[in-house]
Amino acid sequence: MAGNSFGEAFRVTTFGESHGEGVGVVVDGCPPQIPLKSEDFAIDMGRRRPGMGSFDTPRKEKDHVEVLSGIFEGLTTGAPITLLIRNKGANSKSYEVLAQLFRPGHGDYTYFRKYGHFDYRGGGRYSARETAARVAAGVVARKILEPLDISVTAYTVELGGVKAKNINFDSADKNPFYCPDPDASERMLKTLSKAGEEGDSLGGITEVRVRNCPWGLGEPVFDKLDADLAKAVMSIGAVKGVEIGAGFEAAGLKGSENNDPLVPGGFKSNRAGGILGGISNGDEISLRAAIKPIPSIFLEQDTIDRNGNAAKLKLKGRFDVSAIPRILPVLEAMVRIVIVDHYFRARTKNA
Amino acid sequence: MAGNSFGEAFRVTTFGESHGEGVGVVVDGCPPQIPLKSEDFAIDMGRRRPGMGSFDTPRKEKDHVEVLSGIFEGLTTGAPITLLIRNKGANSKSYEVLAQLFRPGHGDYTYFRKYGHFDYRGGGRYSARETAARVAAGVVARKILEPLDISVTAYTVELGGVKAKNINFDSADKNPFYCPDPDASERMLKTLSKAGEEGDSLGGITEVRVRNCPWGLGEPVFDKLDADLAKAVMSIGAVKGVEIGAGFEAAGLKGSENNDPLVPGGFKSNRAGGILGGISNGDEISLRAAIKPIPSIFLEQDTIDRNGNAAKLKLKGRFDVSAIPRILPVLEAMVRIVIVDHYFRARTKNA
Amino acid sequence: MAGNSFGEAFRVTTFGESHGEGVGVVVDGCPPQIPLKSEDFAIDMGRRRPGMGSFDTPRKEKDHVEVLSGIFEGLTTGAPITLLIRNKGANSKSYEVLAQLFRPGHGDYTYFRKYGHFDYRGGGRYSARETAARVAAGVVARKILEPLDISVTAYTVELGGVKAKNINFDSADKNPFYCPDPDASERMLKTLSKAGEEGDSLGGITEVRVRNCPWGLGEPVFDKLDADLAKAVMSIGAVKGVEIGAGFEAAGLKGSENNDPLVPGGFKSNRAGGILGGISNGDEISLRAAIKPIPSIFLEQDTIDRNGNAAKLKLKGRFDVSAIPRILPVLEAMVRIVIVDHYFRARTKNA
Amino acid sequence: MAGNSFGEAFRVTTFGESHGEGVGVVVDGCPPQIPLKSEDFAIDMGRRRPGMGSFDTPRKEKDHVEVLSGIFEGLTTGAPITLLIRNKGANSKSYEVLAQLFRPGHGDYTYFRKYGHFDYRGGGRYSARETAARVAAGVVARKILEPLDISVTAYTVELGGVKAKNINFDSADKNPFYCPDPDASERMLKTLSKAGEEGDSLGGITEVRVRNCPWGLGEPVFDKLDADLAKAVMSIGAVKGVEIGAGFEAAGLKGSENNDPLVPGGFKSNRAGGILGGISNGDEISLRAAIKPIPSIFLEQDTIDRNGNAAKLKLKGRFDVSAIPRILPVLEAMVRIVIVDHYFRARTKNA
Repeated sequence: MAGNSFGEAFRVTTFGESHGEGVGVVVDGCPPQIPLKSEDFAIDMGRRRPGMGSFDTPRKEKDHVEVLSGIFEGLTTGAPITLLIRNKGANSKSYEVLAQLFRPGHGDYTYFRKYGHFDYRGGGRYSARETAARVAAGVVARKILEPLDISVTAYTVELGGVKAKNINFDSADKNPFYCPDPDASERMLKTLSKAGEEGDSLGGITEVRVRNCPWGLGEPVFDKLDADLAKAVMSIGAVKGVEIGAGFEAAGLKGSENNDPLVPGGFKSNRAGGILGGISNGDEISLRAAIKPIPSIFLEQDTIDRNGNAAKLKLKGRFDVSAIPRILPVLEAMVRIVIVDHYFRARTKNA
Repeated sequence: MAGNSFGEAFRVTTFGESHGEGVGVVVDGCPPQIPLKSEDFAIDMGRRRPGMGSFDTPRKEKDHVEVLSGIFEGLTTGAPITLLIRNKGANSKSYEVLAQLFRPGHGDYTYFRKYGHFDYRGGGRYSARETAARVAAGVVARKILEPLDISVTAYTVELGGVKAKNINFDSADKNPFYCPDPDASERMLKTLSKAGEEGDSLGGITEVRVRNCPWGLGEPVFDKLDADLAKAVMSIGAVKGVEIGAGFEAAGLKGSENNDPLVPGGFKSNRAGGILGGISNGDEISLRAAIKPIPSIFLEQDTIDRNGNAAKLKLKGRFDVSAIPRILPVLEAMVRIVIVDHYFRARTKNA
Repeated sequence: MAGNSFGEAFRVTTFGESHGEGVGVVVDGCPPQIPLKSEDFAIDMGRRRPGMGSFDTPRKEKDHVEVLSGIFEGLTTGAPITLLIRNKGANSKSYEVLAQLFRPGHGDYTYFRKYGHFDYRGGGRYSARETAARVAAGVVARKILEPLDISVTAYTVELGGVKAKNINFDSADKNPFYCPDPDASERMLKTLSKAGEEGDSLGGITEVRVRNCPWGLGEPVFDKLDADLAKAVMSIGAVKGVEIGAGFEAAGLKGSENNDPLVPGGFKSNRAGGILGGISNGDEISLRAAIKPIPSIFLEQDTIDRNGNAAKLKLKGRFDVSAIPRILPVLEAMVRIVIVDHYFRARTKNA
Repeated sequence: MAGNSFGEAFRVTTFGESHGEGVGVVVDGCPPQIPLKSEDFAIDMGRRRPGMGSFDTPRKEKDHVEVLSGIFEGLTTGAPITLLIRNKGANSKSYEVLAQLFRPGHGDYTYFRKYGHFDYRGGGRYSARETAARVAAGVVARKILEPLDISVTAYTVELGGVKAKNINFDSADKNPFYCPDPDASERMLKTLSKAGEEGDSLGGITEVRVRNCPWGLGEPVFDKLDADLAKAVMSIGAVKGVEIGAGFEAAGLKGSENNDPLVPGGFKSNRAGGILGGISNGDEISLRAAIKPIPSIFLEQDTIDRNGNAAKLKLKGRFDVSAIPRILPVLEAMVRIVIVDHYFRARTKNA
């Protein structure tokens, strides 16, 4: 049943496969009169592209975003905005073996069972390629948030076991992981290279912050802001965990340690991550996502074929060693979409 | 904007406040001809009640569930089922101070900002009392899952820093925390008593497992099973983090360690937590939730009043020291609701 | 699958049966700080009551609306408002024959086929009794519209073939049908009495007008204002047709006759019924609904029993001769709900 | 707020404008393994094209449907199906006057007020061109209904005041209006020509029948089958009224005349139009829609400009004289979409 839409007041519907015509998104609920043009997508789309030195994938995706609808004379009209990103140069030959063997850690097996039939070339619908559409939609959300001075930033705090410790946000955009610890980023790079040489892959932890988020966003008791953020982030294929503010660390604290005391003008601390009772409290929103290692590795793996017989799988081609940093703009996009959706929803009821 | 419903094919809408007439839920989408009576709710409601030795709250909630609609001759009819749990013996006098001072860690401040007006007595709508309605709805879900032999169980794996290590599920129902490690449960009890004596509170980590979940549940790319589970669990007030399968641990693994190899008949391991590509794979589903310490503590706290002036708050009354174990049936209820919802949704499209 | 909710930003979920505990509604999305008390419901509920002289039903429904949630200190809180109307004095004995025989024109047959099991006493879920919950929800909508000076009025323009011709709205509230033609209302009364004496029933046509509806309501291309009005009105059991403005008459006009010319300040005519392109144009909204004759008649009818065998049915008891005028407050309620829902939805996008 | 999607289990989201890149639709919820190719769209798209002798529009739309997603090896995959119909040869110069003057009867005025900014060229989003996307989605629905032997047919019963009387369905596809009365169709053609020569336009009444619709479709009390049909049909721009079965005629009947007696195997008559209590009863579903005359006429009309000043408007170019017959495939498409959506929804709950 229809599960490809997200959001209520600001609703995105993605479509497309990794080896079909392309991927895209319909953005419904964007207000009129917002300037938007193809060039606005370049930076975000570029950050999602493969291309991190030796560990990139062979597909040089030139992800041009074609605006199919919803714009007139350079401005949004209030009608649905459709964004299409054509696939280019995809070579489906190298995927032939995948018509028979399920790749461990990927959706091959479950898609085959659920749909009986699926585009096995690079994952088809469940390829990370789909996230290009989310990033494109996130650009529309960004154009709505910018005049409100609300910004969303994702960065890496752990990769392959290397943790960021001495946080300095000024340094984040000087390394490919947007890691706010220059020393850690150096070690991440080495760890990544080593894993790539071994034919293996790495996971990590990313953090997202929403600056200047106004208070009052979130519609309890189910469409709480943190609940919708959790869904948005967990709907990204590589994510296996989400935490808000202190998150799992809060589980080990006492109430006297975890409560954020109120002081005139705000809060003394922010272990809540900017959300109380499911509603933004005006403080910075922070969340973390656990990113699993990319399932595509070059080491031989046990698997089964479509008939259920045991088999050995050894993948060929070139893949990213980690979903980080490519996943960062995807995380930003999903968080922006949630913030915009709730910003509009809150308008109808806030005092 | 309307945010009090959850689910598409099986939709629950909760209502009610801690100190109003009661709390309740409308369950829409329940199939007809399922036996259901008031007595079916007793066990689950009882588990949600306060009453764990010295650390219970004074309200002896006798949570009788009144079935207002949807049943005829002992069977569901396919019409909405409405369940009402009246509030009893609530003493709102002790809450008068809260009309002026915001309790740190609670939704007081955000509700006041968002709605300009709120039932401050015990939290009103954002009281944990609301979860009684979720538990009642979860019983309806359980009645649907039982004939399918699908079961959902929540238990404690960490409390106040004490971690379960030697897992033996047979022992879980012999301690109040449903902790599957008898030694750990003893220490949890002591830690809890000590924190209670200090006027402080504790958090912890709970785990939920779905046994016999059929493959094919989940509607990518947004209504993935893990995404909806994350939302369902994060929508519970005390939850600050959710992880599926290996979760945050997966972030530190390599692909060769994290991938679950396929073998004839299933999977060799289950770090995925039973979900691949957002779709259940037939293996056991497992997730963990981080539970923050209860914000209501007896130690003096800094806060502000409605006018924004600094103030000191010292709560009176008696409160639970931890949301664990009362939160366990709530977690089970929410997970059951997700499973039933997706079970029905999958019927429309699965091969 | 869940079909008992209506509206997006302002969402009502009704529940209950004619012979169970009662009927009710959860209203989700009502803004905070609106004064609301049990007494506010009396007038609308009274208008929906049976009791029009000789043609009333025996059930003297004293429809007291119990407010179960969402109110604090006399004001709405922004939380869901739950309204419960208990059933009283319902005698289910007279319905025993209906456990076997399907009443022509009622939902007996389709409910039996669809659900395999249903509350046959007075229709259960599909009884007109359910509309009491809609009327109660409509009162909440009215409290939102009143400060905006938007009013919704339903009245009768045809009953049993008698048509209102000389329209004088001042006279409408002086007859039980709210018919704006005093002469016609007299003849309606006679026609109704005669049909009642014959054991038969009558249909008619009602009109609804929305005064002071602001321009800009309606979300094309599917959630157009007229589309949602059509659904809202057609979802009332007795309604078999809906038309907006000139409606079916427009089918016989030429473009030069049907177009409403624009003039400074508005429109020269209003054949559009206040809606252009699915969006309110600031003019008065008008729609008409065709009301079928009540299927419960005292004349002998052909039918079948649960086993599919031919049978004769002769109903006993006392029924209304026409759904008019009781349906008028139901129509008003549904139209108000649509207007409020779209008023809130429009806030998120209008220029 | 997002209003461009329709359906729950089978959900279509249209996008696009008359003079932008094109129009299209995302179909979410289509089951896998259904054969679908570009050629499948040709017949339905052809019927929607302008081209009825002398009264066609100048745009020779060659409406090729490009399938952008959701198909693999000629079969649907269960992923969203995206269909794109590029605009061709649109000359936007002739629309320049419309940047200043509002066309009576069109959405110009309301779009301008609501969005402050709109694509005035041919109506942009609210052009009838958008219905091409609906027709394309309706083809997907048809491919689902065909194996179930469910068929949906629309035809003309009145045009420019000429009514079909001697119904003979075999003759319907022999005239451009799909009018089942050969004599009437001749007169319709003449009436249409005459109106076209006068620079005026015509409305009419169309009927839609669903053959072999299974019992049990419809989800009371709001998502009744007739309620959703009413919304679907009323969401088409030219439609001003909808009636089910006997419709407005039922308003003048007595209960003894309007009730359809049950007989072994079905119903003796079908004034209900195949729906009882909001649920399909297994009989043929029939509905009628009132089609207003096309607002674009060549006669001079009073209007205002964007500043609110009085003006005269005389349209140039060539337009259809009536939305009939081009609206017939659009009606079929919307009705099919409703049937498929409810077919899937019913699977989750029917006994």
